[in-house]
Amino acid sequence: MDKMVYLFEEGNATMRDLLGGKGAGLAEMTRIGLPVPPGLTITTEVCRAYYRQAEKLPADLPALVRSALSVVEAKTGRRLGDKDKPLLLSVRSGAKFSMPGMMDTVLNLGINDDTLPGLAAMTGNRRFALDAYRRFLQMYADVVMGYSKHAFAALLEEKKRKAGVKLDQELSEAQLAEVVADYKQLYARLSDKPFPTDPFEQLMQAVEAVFRSWNTERAKVYRELHGISHDLGTAVNIQAMVFGNMGATSGSGVAFTRNPANGNKEVFGEYLVDAQGEDVVAGIRTPNPIAKLRQDMPGVYEQFIQVTERLEKHYQDMQDIEFTVEEGKLYILQTRNGKRTGQAAVKIAHDLAVEGIIAKEKALLLVEPAHLEQVMHRQVDESTPLQVIARGLPASPGAAVGRVVFSADEADRKHREGEKVILVRMETTPEDIHGIVAAEGILTSRGGMTSHAAVVARGMGKPCICGCEAVRIDYDARLFRAGELVVKAGDLLSLDGASGRVILGEVVMCDPELSPEYETLLRWADETARVKVRANADTPADAALARAFGATGIGLCRTEHMFMATDRLPYVQQMILAGTVAQREAALKHLLPMQEADFYGIFSAMEGLPVTIRLLDPPLHEFLPKEDEVLTSVLSLRLAGDQSRKLAEREALLAKIRELKEANPMLGHRGCRLGLTYPEIYEMQIKAIFLAVVRLLQEGKQVLPEIEVPLTVDKRELDACIARVHETARRVCADEGVQVDYLVGTMIELPRAALLADELAASADFFSFGTNDLTQTTFGFSRDDAEAKFLPHYLHQGLLAENPFAVLDRKGVGGLMKLAIAGGRSVKPGLLIGICGEHGGEPNSIAFCHEIGLDYVSCSPYRVPIARLAAAQAVLAGGAAGGGTK
Amino acid sequence: MDKMVYLFEEGNATMRDLLGGKGAGLAEMTRIGLPVPPGLTITTEVCRAYYRQAEKLPADLPALVRSALSVVEAKTGRRLGDKDKPLLLSVRSGAKFSMPGMMDTVLNLGINDDTLPGLAAMTGNRRFALDAYRRFLQMYADVVMGYSKHAFAALLEEKKRKAGVKLDQELSEAQLAEVVADYKQLYARLSDKPFPTDPFEQLMQAVEAVFRSWNTERAKVYRELHGISHDLGTAVNIQAMVFGNMGATSGSGVAFTRNPANGNKEVFGEYLVDAQGEDVVAGIRTPNPIAKLRQDMPGVYEQFIQVTERLEKHYQDMQDIEFTVEEGKLYILQTRNGKRTGQAAVKIAHDLAVEGIIAKEKALLLVEPAHLEQVMHRQVDESTPLQVIARGLPASPGAAVGRVVFSADEADRKHREGEKVILVRMETTPEDIHGIVAAEGILTSRGGMTSHAAVVARGMGKPCICGCEAVRIDYDARLFRAGELVVKAGDLLSLDGASGRVILGEVVMCDPELSPEYETLLRWADETARVKVRANADTPADAALARAFGATGIGLCRTEHMFMATDRLPYVQQMILAGTVAQREAALKHLLPMQEADFYGIFSAMEGLPVTIRLLDPPLHEFLPKEDEVLTSVLSLRLAGDQSRKLAEREALLAKIRELKEANPMLGHRGCRLGLTYPEIYEMQIKAIFLAVVRLLQEGKQVLPEIEVPLTVDKRELDACIARVHETARRVCADEGVQVDYLVGTMIELPRAALLADELAASADFFSFGTNDLTQTTFGFSRDDAEAKFLPHYLHQGLLAENPFAVLDRKGVGGLMKLAIAGGRSVKPGLLIGICGEHGGEPNSIAFCHEIGLDYVSCSPYRVPIARLAAAQAVLAGGAAGGGTK
Repeated sequence: MDKMVYLFEEGNATMRDLLGGKGAGLAEMTRIGLPVPPGLTITTEVCRAYYRQAEKLPADLPALVRSALSVVEAKTGRRLGDKDKPLLLSVRSGAKFSMPGMMDTVLNLGINDDTLPGLAAMTGNRRFALDAYRRFLQMYADVVMGYSKHAFAALLEEKKRKAGVKLDQELSEAQLAEVVADYKQLYARLSDKPFPTDPFEQLMQAVEAVFRSWNTERAKVYRELHGISHDLGTAVNIQAMVFGNMGATSGSGVAFTRNPANGNKEVFGEYLVDAQGEDVVAGIRTPNPIAKLRQDMPGVYEQFIQVTERLEKHYQDMQDIEFTVEEGKLYILQTRNGKRTGQAAVKIAHDLAVEGIIAKEKALLLVEPAHLEQVMHRQVDESTPLQVIARGLPASPGAAVGRVVFSADEADRKHREGEKVILVRMETTPEDIHGIVAAEGILTSRGGMTSHAAVVARGMGKPCICGCEAVRIDYDARLFRAGELVVKAGDLLSLDGASGRVILGEVVMCDPELSPEYETLLRWADETARVKVRANADTPADAALARAFGATGIGLCRTEHMFMATDRLPYVQQMILAGTVAQREAALKHLLPMQEADFYGIFSAMEGLPVTIRLLDPPLHEFLPKEDEVLTSVLSLRLAGDQSRKLAEREALLAKIRELKEANPMLGHRGCRLGLTYPEIYEMQIKAIFLAVVRLLQEGKQVLPEIEVPLTVDKRELDACIARVHETARRVCADEGVQVDYLVGTMIELPRAALLADELAASADFFSFGTNDLTQTTFGFSRDDAEAKFLPHYLHQGLLAENPFAVLDRKGVGGLMKLAIAGGRSVKPGLLIGICGEHGGEPNSIAFCHEIGLDYVSCSPYRVPIARLAAAQAVLAGGAAGGGTK
Repeated sequence: MDKMVYLFEEGNATMRDLLGGKGAGLAEMTRIGLPVPPGLTITTEVCRAYYRQAEKLPADLPALVRSALSVVEAKTGRRLGDKDKPLLLSVRSGAKFSMPGMMDTVLNLGINDDTLPGLAAMTGNRRFALDAYRRFLQMYADVVMGYSKHAFAALLEEKKRKAGVKLDQELSEAQLAEVVADYKQLYARLSDKPFPTDPFEQLMQAVEAVFRSWNTERAKVYRELHGISHDLGTAVNIQAMVFGNMGATSGSGVAFTRNPANGNKEVFGEYLVDAQGEDVVAGIRTPNPIAKLRQDMPGVYEQFIQVTERLEKHYQDMQDIEFTVEEGKLYILQTRNGKRTGQAAVKIAHDLAVEGIIAKEKALLLVEPAHLEQVMHRQVDESTPLQVIARGLPASPGAAVGRVVFSADEADRKHREGEKVILVRMETTPEDIHGIVAAEGILTSRGGMTSHAAVVARGMGKPCICGCEAVRIDYDARLFRAGELVVKAGDLLSLDGASGRVILGEVVMCDPELSPEYETLLRWADETARVKVRANADTPADAALARAFGATGIGLCRTEHMFMATDRLPYVQQMILAGTVAQREAALKHLLPMQEADFYGIFSAMEGLPVTIRLLDPPLHEFLPKEDEVLTSVLSLRLAGDQSRKLAEREALLAKIRELKEANPMLGHRGCRLGLTYPEIYEMQIKAIFLAVVRLLQEGKQVLPEIEVPLTVDKRELDACIARVHETARRVCADEGVQVDYLVGTMIELPRAALLADELAASADFFSFGTNDLTQTTFGFSRDDAEAKFLPHYLHQGLLAENPFAVLDRKGVGGLMKLAIAGGRSVKPGLLIGICGEHGGEPNSIAFCHEIGLDYVSCSPYRVPIARLAAAQAVLAGGAAGGGTK
């Protein structure tokens, strides 16, 4: 194996793979001369070796650690286990990708009965030494031995209760000494042997514990959630402890270089005087804003602000910094790119570029597609009355509505049952991760803006309100009180994460207002992207929304949605039930002006931009009631001896439903198959399109219609449909004396169409990939059936890496797309090709669409901004597999 | 245009495209010196030009015809329209592929009032001249003018009735002259002008009539049925008439060089003295066997026999020869490869090879796959009592059962309604073609072995009994009598075409006995073929049958068919309804020994040959009753106020059916998806397989099991299934202490499997193409829905050339197969690859399978011989698109 142990001064920022994010950061900070306590890093490679060797540390590791440690000892002038000047160490995990709170840490390692007096003497603070010892005992028992920390905590609580005090700090030295003794006794009872006194042995045990914590269930869940490989392993950072809990001139804090909730340019953080860092993050004491540091120690504050600016410039991104002040001296313990909300991500990326710290391209890469999704989260509609019952910290923005639950398990269970829930906890811990995943939003009564709940919720883009002390939770009674009000488990509650308001009942939500920074950033994206973004829209309202979100056209207008409208359905059913072509045409005559009006509205909304209209696609039986219902009513009428007209009508309807029934409607009588067997339906639609186009042209407007034939498998089929379009267009245009330019193309949504694309391209003006159906047929997965029956099992068992209906399957479906593009463009080099399946709005899939040379992606209006960003990122990724956060 | 008119002496046998089959034959016979009346051929190119030029003959055609005709006139010493020595002509169609009886002919052209005396004087037979004139008038009116021939025939019948005679020959000269006058009068009345007297004008009119007859409805139907292109066009042959109706030393006949029904080496034909050829074919007079010619004119007979031998050797195939004897002189009018039954095709091909006339390879090409299908037609089981009500000529073998109909239209209608019918007619004509297509078998009361019904039925491989005079048909009463017995329309009737027996009621049918020639021929096929033939068989009986038919293994054993057996279904349902894994395993425990016995039987039957067993494939709901039925019974019980256990049971069943219900079961929870989500089912099957294998090995038998995973789309899926197979095999084999060799492979039946074949091949020992499902997903056609709803429309409209479920789609499905083979063999060069879809038994598809390099095709046992032949023919076609009859 290569070098297993690095001193901080031996590494740098590029070594994340080997040293982990934290280790590389400490090395980099050391390299650029920041005040970092000295230390060393055991590489991730050692962790991988540990797992390869059946969870055994390499034999030569202790010697290497001991050797590096001697350098640290020399720098600090202290020695591990030394009676007079004992060195205390922190032992922390640090993987390549940050997994906040997921893995274990041991602090204050190096105290034992022997070193305690030395520590007390050295610091002049025996109380502090005892408290450090107590903390270490509890942490070691928990992390290294796996003993319940609650048993230890209970001893402390008992002591405080007996002493009649509330805070740890209020205990006397003697009382703390008793707690230490109690802890050691409890440890000995639990482990059947006394607490180990050799600090180096403790150190190696702690290292192994950190490696073990890589594979806990909660760490695995987190990695799966964030798409982090299980094979990376973690590094271990061993660092000289500095103490924030050495009195009034000491303290610990966590700060972001900019506001992680809204992106404002202000150092944003929290700080506790006389406390170790864990106290800030754990949410046990609600910390003070960073401004408090300015009051307490102006010089330290000034120095810290300079450090934050330097770090932000150095890393070209907003930083999340942990620091400690030990008796007036500032130490930087960690820096990393800070987690942020979508709103903040947009503002920070924009501002950093405008400030000249980063290039525009870098700014585009700083925003993740998921960030934009958050920005577009619907928000609380303020125009309706709201019953605000409490206010907490606005830890993560967005509005959430759900039913109150009080445990992560319950949140998870209800979520699986399809219920939306709000998780209400005093505080959250890494064990609650599955509950946070399951909840719509999180409310905690304790903890600050950097507490576990806040950090995790922001990372996931979930609304979160923290430190809402007005909420008094009673877990046993499964309720909370806010003033006089009692809210029980199962009650409906709304959160407004942007304002921190807790609202009783279900709020109305509305579209977000988008910031100028957002608009600028997406303009940059459009300048960078090659693939255009269109929208799927079936109504004038959707079309207008899509245009407002920056769509450059409509890539899919589904005419069947128009057929479903309540004023049309009766005519549609009349058309289906028609016994003759004449009856069918009579029904279609009613639909013609309605469809014309639809198209008129959509073309108007998209004036000057292309609009792809797909001819009717679904099987006719989708427009009739369900067989079950009709059968039930027929049987009921029959058994009731009904003789009326109604029974006969229902029977006729049932007969028609059965006539149209198909074994596999997905593969049945739909798409152009329908258009070719019932030509009068397509004829009506084509006529309606051209009547609308002609009207708009006569009004002096620009219209770019693209007519699309669905479900094609053969050139002859396509040609027959195209001939009908041309013929009908010719007739309408001749009647009106107007010249219309239009395109006629085809969906590529069945494997055969992809395989015979060269033939189809000879006839088609454009191709549009329908990757929903193409995925269904390529996999032989009926989406409805697969997602309900076996797909969850497949994903859980790792039989498939992704749900292919969410993320485009590059090998199978993508392989067919590549064949189709090559075939089509071999005949027509400039053939217009797009995608209109749901994948058109998914970043990883958009990156693929860019790579294979599509002209546009089309997605739902709300995903248009995300697609615009993803299209730009695909360019910046340089054609390699890109997009996403991995 | 190239040369439009060829004298017979200018052409040869290779010019079928240009001169048509008949023209090329006449030219070839002229070339080799046979006694052929002189003549000329107008090329098929002229016919195509005629249709290109809106049905106008080329302007210079008459001059070219006149010029060629002058050569014919010189050879015969007669001239068209000459008063003293008039030349009479026949004008016949002749397309590239024979379409017997489908197109028009005009005979005796050249007679008019002017030439009649000369013809009478020249032949010394005024009676003959008048009869020829009468025939010509009727034929010209029918063929050229389209007047009903029945109107003319009625005049003749009326004259015979008045004269009190039965046969045409019994009419006196004077009476015949009256008939001629009556005919001319009728013609003038129908056409409003007198009968045209210029013979050359008549000739050009007749030529055009022949061209027109290319595009009659019946000709089109025939071509569609036989897969002949509509674009070929027909040639026209104009030939000096010779007269078989010039008294006792004249006659006409039709003969095959071998027996077309059973293939025996004997000149087989029919002959009518003092008759023209049309009399033989029309079935109006029942002709004499050819042996009669030997008695009547031994010298001519001898000469004819020599000609038949010469022609058979020359054309290297059994010939169908038309001849006429004019006053003791033999003329050969036509020769062509004779239509034959399957049995005859096999024997003739075999015998020609054994006699050294052709090579074995040529013999293999002389038998069409459809011939073998006929040979394997089931036959009448003689062990059951048969009520034979009449006997006729055994015109085309095979047994048929159906309900009696008396018209082609009725046959067609009933057939469309799904009924099997026997068409009973006095005689059939080309207008009856759709009825013959629709019928199971044909029975005529008149006409011989070469009558229309006989020739057409043999061509189609349909059972036919001709000239069954014991059957007296009453069309008006819609019945026939056989002795005392009355058989009405709709009664069940059976025909035994091989023996000529007409049997009342429905006979039992049994497998055919296959001739030694058949066995030899298929042995030759096996020696030639590269692609092996396996069978799809699910039971020991089917396996034994397949082996008897020459299968080299089982390519698909579907285990679900075993689940459907009535003794198993209750356990299968119990397994499905199980609420827990334990309950499911209890039900499976019952199924295990049954499956083991199934596999034991199949392996035994196929000892020493490979057997591919596919693990359970269909969705579980296929084993439960239909939702409709259960819903109906639940509703009925509920409305009846039922309180019993039964209602609860039915409700539970209904709930389970609904739980398992899928939107698109074809793309649903089936195949290995089922095996992975309910692992205990596959485990039981695998265990049963290996228990059976071990038992056989212990008995000293050779077993070659190949276990097949259905519906794979990803390597991980396949690997999970393969791991289960290996694990279970290991356990069973370890328990029994036996070593088993086996393969584990996968179906390639979804596009993704084909596209990712390289990955799958890394895990699979073999591939088997499931082209039924692959066709469904490649086209997005649910077979059930497509064939019921839109596929007939597609085929009728020419939107698809073939039903892709019958004939493998080379471009789409075939394209995926090629990708899969290339992918699979890029990883494992020798990868075993087969096909087990229904296409595996279809000759055109087998040719494709040969071309793309499959190792075997697998088809139903009854198609194994056809596949063996097709596999050999694919080699002989040299890898080009081959097989079939086109």
